[in-house]
Amino acid sequence: MLHRLCIVGLGLMGGAVGLAARRHRAATRVIGVGDQPETIDKARRMGAVDDATLDVREGVRDADLVILAVPVRLIPDVAKAILGSLRQGTVLTDLGSTKAPVVHAIDHLIAQAKAPVHFVGSHPITGSEKSGIESAGEVQLEDASCILTPTQQTDHEAYRTVDDFWKSLQMKTQRMAPEEHDAVLARSSHLPHLISYALIQAQTSRSLQFSGPGLRDLTRLAGSDVRLWTDIYTQNANEMAKVVKEYADSMQALAQEFTALAQAGTPGSEAARERLFRFLADARQRHDERFPPGKPKAPEPDLREKDTQVVPQQ
Amino acid sequence: MLHRLCIVGLGLMGGAVGLAARRHRAATRVIGVGDQPETIDKARRMGAVDDATLDVREGVRDADLVILAVPVRLIPDVAKAILGSLRQGTVLTDLGSTKAPVVHAIDHLIAQAKAPVHFVGSHPITGSEKSGIESAGEVQLEDASCILTPTQQTDHEAYRTVDDFWKSLQMKTQRMAPEEHDAVLARSSHLPHLISYALIQAQTSRSLQFSGPGLRDLTRLAGSDVRLWTDIYTQNANEMAKVVKEYADSMQALAQEFTALAQAGTPGSEAARERLFRFLADARQRHDERFPPGKPKAPEPDLREKDTQVVPQQ
Repeated sequence: MLHRLCIVGLGLMGGAVGLAARRHRAATRVIGVGDQPETIDKARRMGAVDDATLDVREGVRDADLVILAVPVRLIPDVAKAILGSLRQGTVLTDLGSTKAPVVHAIDHLIAQAKAPVHFVGSHPITGSEKSGIESAGEVQLEDASCILTPTQQTDHEAYRTVDDFWKSLQMKTQRMAPEEHDAVLARSSHLPHLISYALIQAQTSRSLQFSGPGLRDLTRLAGSDVRLWTDIYTQNANEMAKVVKEYADSMQALAQEFTALAQAGTPGSEAARERLFRFLADARQRHDERFPPGKPKAPEPDLREKDTQVVPQQ
Repeated sequence: MLHRLCIVGLGLMGGAVGLAARRHRAATRVIGVGDQPETIDKARRMGAVDDATLDVREGVRDADLVILAVPVRLIPDVAKAILGSLRQGTVLTDLGSTKAPVVHAIDHLIAQAKAPVHFVGSHPITGSEKSGIESAGEVQLEDASCILTPTQQTDHEAYRTVDDFWKSLQMKTQRMAPEEHDAVLARSSHLPHLISYALIQAQTSRSLQFSGPGLRDLTRLAGSDVRLWTDIYTQNANEMAKVVKEYADSMQALAQEFTALAQAGTPGSEAARERLFRFLADARQRHDERFPPGKPKAPEPDLREKDTQVVPQQ
């Protein structure tokens, strides 16, 4: 068990980690650092922290583990600001949705400052379109995946500290290179968010009005923080360019199928119908394998070993 | 109140309408017509019908209102099969997700047969990705929209009968030309379904695995019945060709923005970032107006009069 856990940033995810850490008694004391008096009051009242402060240097002092739960664009700056206040051996992690830029920036900072501390990047694959600590209780960490992104520079003991911490919250940890993380998440998270925003913009005011639960659920992510997502997209622009182009091309191909399909009664229409049926049937099969029908809606990451590159713990 | 309501087809939607009709006492008797003994047993046990039969001609006899709740490709055939068994003045409606082909086919059938019955097309804007009467309880009709699609041939009294029926289930009825319905629903329902299937196919096995609640929710509709959706797409292929092309073009434009954005530090990247931020912010605003944050997740169709073409009842 950790002695002193410090969470820097008391928003949706910082709050969720604090709540889970206290629920699972992952640390003797959970200290939160917020940037506004109201936020640290809320964090205390919700039980997301044992104590909280506005002074980041005070908060991180003597911590075994510091979690940077600030917006992704600010992570390196906050890391830089606290490096001098950390005691020897403190382990640092983050919750950023992109990993390569963050991880390499902090590795570089630590090497340059010769700081006696260790960093391991983390990304818990869960969340909500909502923002703010008041929605932290809606984020489910238990049973979700958490990806750790060590580099050549990563200390083995520090990796184990971070891995053990996430496991103590009942998360399923997986290890990935930062660059692979960014490529995988471009598809599984950053593209879906973009689609939610784009699907709203594909509506007319009349079609928005005459919509049911389908459109509501598919555009849920368009309620996400726009600044945060602009930053994620900026940091992962290379991967997004590839993934969005590929997706756009598949949509162009589907548009052509519909043009062929619309020539009712022609052999071309019959063939297009057959291909469309096959496309939908293949997608349905892959969908049902990953998200079995009739299961409850809570996130259930599929970490079956058969197609997971399981790396033994260090 | 109706005397005898007959629902032909005891699947997800037929079952949901039966349950709601009985809950709201919309008819003295609700008769269901199923195609398998197990289905009609289930319908009786669930309380979706007062009585049920495998014989469609027997079921529709003496009905005031017959609801065709069969898959959309079968609606005209079933209408044709029962026309001779309906008593004078019976009102016929359906639940099809496309309206122009269905409505014009049935109008034509009735005119040709000189049958003394009346048809009005309906489409309740609600549902589930699930199939089968066993999931009927999950479909919420109350407070959802129901679009009615009268034509030149539609009888005023029959329109009122169908309109009153849906209102008795606490649905919000709206009137639209069949062609407008198909154009509007191509955007608000048929495109989102296609996106769910396509988003699954945009995943690798690794990205499918490392996904959170976002991907799960955005691909929920890919669990829908493939045959049914192939039929809907076939019937609405013209509108889909337009809407999917437009959406694909917007995705191509976004892919180009990401390519520009990836040139970090250039003025082109800054400009792309600014445009992307604006795109997301506009989408978020439209999203939050239609689906206000913090509201419960139940479908809440937005039928504010300000941008609705409200047509007085006949």
